Amino acid sequence: MQSKISAGRFFEDFKLHEVIQHATPRTITAGDSALYIALTGARNPLHCSEPLAQALGYPNMPIDDLLAFHIAFGKTVPDVSVNAVANLGYADVRFLQPIYVGDTLTTSSEVIGLKQNSSGKNGVVWVRSTTLNQHQQPVLSWVRWVMVQKRNHEATAPETVIPELPEFVAAESLAIPANFKLQNDLGVATRGKYWWDDYEVGECMRHPSGLTINETDHTLATHLYQNNARLHFDAHLMKSTPQGKRLVYGGVVISACRALSYEGLENAISILAINGGTHANPSYAGDTIYCLTKVLDKWSLPHPELGALRLRMVGVKNMPPTTLENIKTTQGYHPHVVLDLDYTVLIPRKGN
Amino acid sequence: MQSKISAGRFFEDFKLHEVIQHATPRTITAGDSALYIALTGARNPLHCSEPLAQALGYPNMPIDDLLAFHIAFGKTVPDVSVNAVANLGYADVRFLQPIYVGDTLTTSSEVIGLKQNSSGKNGVVWVRSTTLNQHQQPVLSWVRWVMVQKRNHEATAPETVIPELPEFVAAESLAIPANFKLQNDLGVATRGKYWWDDYEVGECMRHPSGLTINETDHTLATHLYQNNARLHFDAHLMKSTPQGKRLVYGGVVISACRALSYEGLENAISILAINGGTHANPSYAGDTIYCLTKVLDKWSLPHPELGALRLRMVGVKNMPPTTLENIKTTQGYHPHVVLDLDYTVLIPRKGN
Amino acid sequence: MQSKISAGRFFEDFKLHEVIQHATPRTITAGDSALYIALTGARNPLHCSEPLAQALGYPNMPIDDLLAFHIAFGKTVPDVSVNAVANLGYADVRFLQPIYVGDTLTTSSEVIGLKQNSSGKNGVVWVRSTTLNQHQQPVLSWVRWVMVQKRNHEATAPETVIPELPEFVAAESLAIPANFKLQNDLGVATRGKYWWDDYEVGECMRHPSGLTINETDHTLATHLYQNNARLHFDAHLMKSTPQGKRLVYGGVVISACRALSYEGLENAISILAINGGTHANPSYAGDTIYCLTKVLDKWSLPHPELGALRLRMVGVKNMPPTTLENIKTTQGYHPHVVLDLDYTVLIPRKGN
Repeated sequence: MQSKISAGRFFEDFKLHEVIQHATPRTITAGDSALYIALTGARNPLHCSEPLAQALGYPNMPIDDLLAFHIAFGKTVPDVSVNAVANLGYADVRFLQPIYVGDTLTTSSEVIGLKQNSSGKNGVVWVRSTTLNQHQQPVLSWVRWVMVQKRNHEATAPETVIPELPEFVAAESLAIPANFKLQNDLGVATRGKYWWDDYEVGECMRHPSGLTINETDHTLATHLYQNNARLHFDAHLMKSTPQGKRLVYGGVVISACRALSYEGLENAISILAINGGTHANPSYAGDTIYCLTKVLDKWSLPHPELGALRLRMVGVKNMPPTTLENIKTTQGYHPHVVLDLDYTVLIPRKGN
Repeated sequence: MQSKISAGRFFEDFKLHEVIQHATPRTITAGDSALYIALTGARNPLHCSEPLAQALGYPNMPIDDLLAFHIAFGKTVPDVSVNAVANLGYADVRFLQPIYVGDTLTTSSEVIGLKQNSSGKNGVVWVRSTTLNQHQQPVLSWVRWVMVQKRNHEATAPETVIPELPEFVAAESLAIPANFKLQNDLGVATRGKYWWDDYEVGECMRHPSGLTINETDHTLATHLYQNNARLHFDAHLMKSTPQGKRLVYGGVVISACRALSYEGLENAISILAINGGTHANPSYAGDTIYCLTKVLDKWSLPHPELGALRLRMVGVKNMPPTTLENIKTTQGYHPHVVLDLDYTVLIPRKGN
Repeated sequence: MQSKISAGRFFEDFKLHEVIQHATPRTITAGDSALYIALTGARNPLHCSEPLAQALGYPNMPIDDLLAFHIAFGKTVPDVSVNAVANLGYADVRFLQPIYVGDTLTTSSEVIGLKQNSSGKNGVVWVRSTTLNQHQQPVLSWVRWVMVQKRNHEATAPETVIPELPEFVAAESLAIPANFKLQNDLGVATRGKYWWDDYEVGECMRHPSGLTINETDHTLATHLYQNNARLHFDAHLMKSTPQGKRLVYGGVVISACRALSYEGLENAISILAINGGTHANPSYAGDTIYCLTKVLDKWSLPHPELGALRLRMVGVKNMPPTTLENIKTTQGYHPHVVLDLDYTVLIPRKGN
């Protein structure tokens, strides 16, 4: 009798242009949002004040961009990365539409690149994942690439196809909220004094707060996202690995940094794109995460009241970011750097 | 002045056929469901996708069967088991109707059996508990029996009455969803390839994932269920017990095993009955729970698209279930076995 | 370029009668209430049974009084106490209206007192904070005072103004629910046998249950309240303080005690006022909290079915309250006492 337990896809199971429909459609609830606040300390009022969201032109409170992304991403894990040796990167992450309580998200992935490694033991798979809401409208889209084991080392190598990926999502490709209208309410709600006009390319913000990750925090979050990668949950299994303990899901670190960077970016109310990112070093329960942000670029947008900032968000563990001199040298990342993320935010321009 | 603090019921306080109305009616919310996902990693789409639930003929997403059961069960603790020496067993647990967000559950228990132990210091109490929704419809019903201290060892023994209990809930007594209609959507939503027809009696599934229980996980869950049994919450009290620490509520282990056994049972979308169960060894924070499932029996049901599987769900701690040879010997349970549960699930038959 | 990171207000930044509008309006959701139950073990049915709340004359389930208070209070932290040396006290906390899921809370604070300390390095600031719902109706109001650092020790001292504060909120100032009607349902829902008539001034209840606080519990709760005081979250920072570790937010201890004191106060369904309170000693993760309650006073109210009890709620850690002889001596508080709170509850009178 055939085993009922799927071993997951190996490298030779991925076919170019194949589309994988992922399991577990998910209806977003107010419970997800409350838990996200409790798990991250997020204070962005766009996601916790219905009257504010409506004043800004949204029909209702959208949920936090990263909550949506982590839920969408989690669905791809059983099909894409369960036999991954390494998560190599992601790019071209686009936040196409706000997501609301009551929306149901489904995710599929198309295989867009394949390259067997010279060892013949594994290979790199690129997928473009797309999340639809219940109206079949795309709400999220991203590319990631992972190194996956071969089941059978003798299996024939596929033709090598390496997709071209943009270095960053260009300003003209960013999805901006259709009916946005800036209201005084926003400045009152965030108490942030700075707007698009006030930020300068090259500026660096060293956010002062730190967040210590506890064992339950990251497992609750990762389970909320229905991401079932074993290395986050199974301490018995991880005891026999070099780390000796459970790893914190990278999305937990991204969310921690986003919440910590609220101080200094109060009016950067939503994420338009993640251009790329590296989890430079692993994080474990007990680590305290800090964050610094550099302004990489600033763009006007085809809306008179809105602009975009391209930011570099750097997560640092167990040392305040004020004491970090070099994020990266020719030797690689500073050993306390855990995240180097390039992303783009929406921030209103100064009102008149 | 009389103490305002109730010491709870002792053995001699239970009278045959007495009905105890338990405190704390509870309206189920979307917050309960979100927390349940975060606490267990449950991925059954029936409980997290409104469009799927509706496509299958439900008016809305029902909440997870075990979330409902643990909430209902929690209400009985202050009246039934607060002075229990031991929770001896449960049987004939019937899931009579789906429970939805917005439903309000109230639980009562009838004393259906009494037997004083020969020591004269305690006795066994059997209760049949019933949970109603706000329409006064029974949604859950179960029997459990506990050994309870006597307050006064001199109190007269009641007449011994031992209820007859079914070894398992018979197929013809199972409540099947009235308007269920199988849709392709289910296989798409679960990505499970196996249906009622595919499972064989005797078949064993060793589910590969493990879940390490943290101290906060189990206390959050047990409090969510408003189960106030002290041994789960009071570390100071437990320091002076032989275990030396807080015990994990057995329901937490059942839920962990149910979520872990999703791999291999993806289409077993709801629980129809729990036939009986034993918490073979205690669980503590830090334990990693694994699960294996044996198919005990399979029954067709009076609905052309549905069948039932009677399963044995075995929870094992701190060793992968692949390495477990004997669950139980004449010496008793393997010391790593924490749960031995006999339950019945609903699973659609293969579509045409 | 000016730093985008606000250092927060120092003593000389507070001006008498200035009104500070705090950030982060917050729409309350069912997720907040579910998490509050999971974090505290609260079993008050007024906050978890919609049919009961409606039977008692409320339009819907109000959320737990302390959940509302902690959320409202959390908003004041970035403006009032981020540079506080000490939280000195609070008084005249009034619960003016029930708060429901869907309500949006905003909080502002008026500076009502200032007194520079003789050292010239810091001073005491008194603020009266008021929380409005989305209808601009006041729902909560309270005074607290904190000792705040001066940025510049040479800054001129303001005129000393010390506000007069009531020792307790007088019975005639308590806001009682407009349409309350006692129903038998309440006694059935709480299983509490005691009513306003049954409590005597001077009576003491030593609540038997204990609650051990885990690291994640208190950080989840404090983040849920969007209280960003660093000493609760940043273990790396706290390592170099005399305590060496994160402090538990005082509100977490108050909520634990309120939930623990349910046994003996089952029918005390809502909080009308907090008259004052002291966090006598700090609490840390790992501490087990117990509670005892003394009845300080009892008042009839201008509603034939309702009365008020003024209570002293004492939180004790790592020793059962049955063994506590003296809460406070001339030497100060017993070293295990963590909370001494004077508050007033609403409790129905005995029905006819």
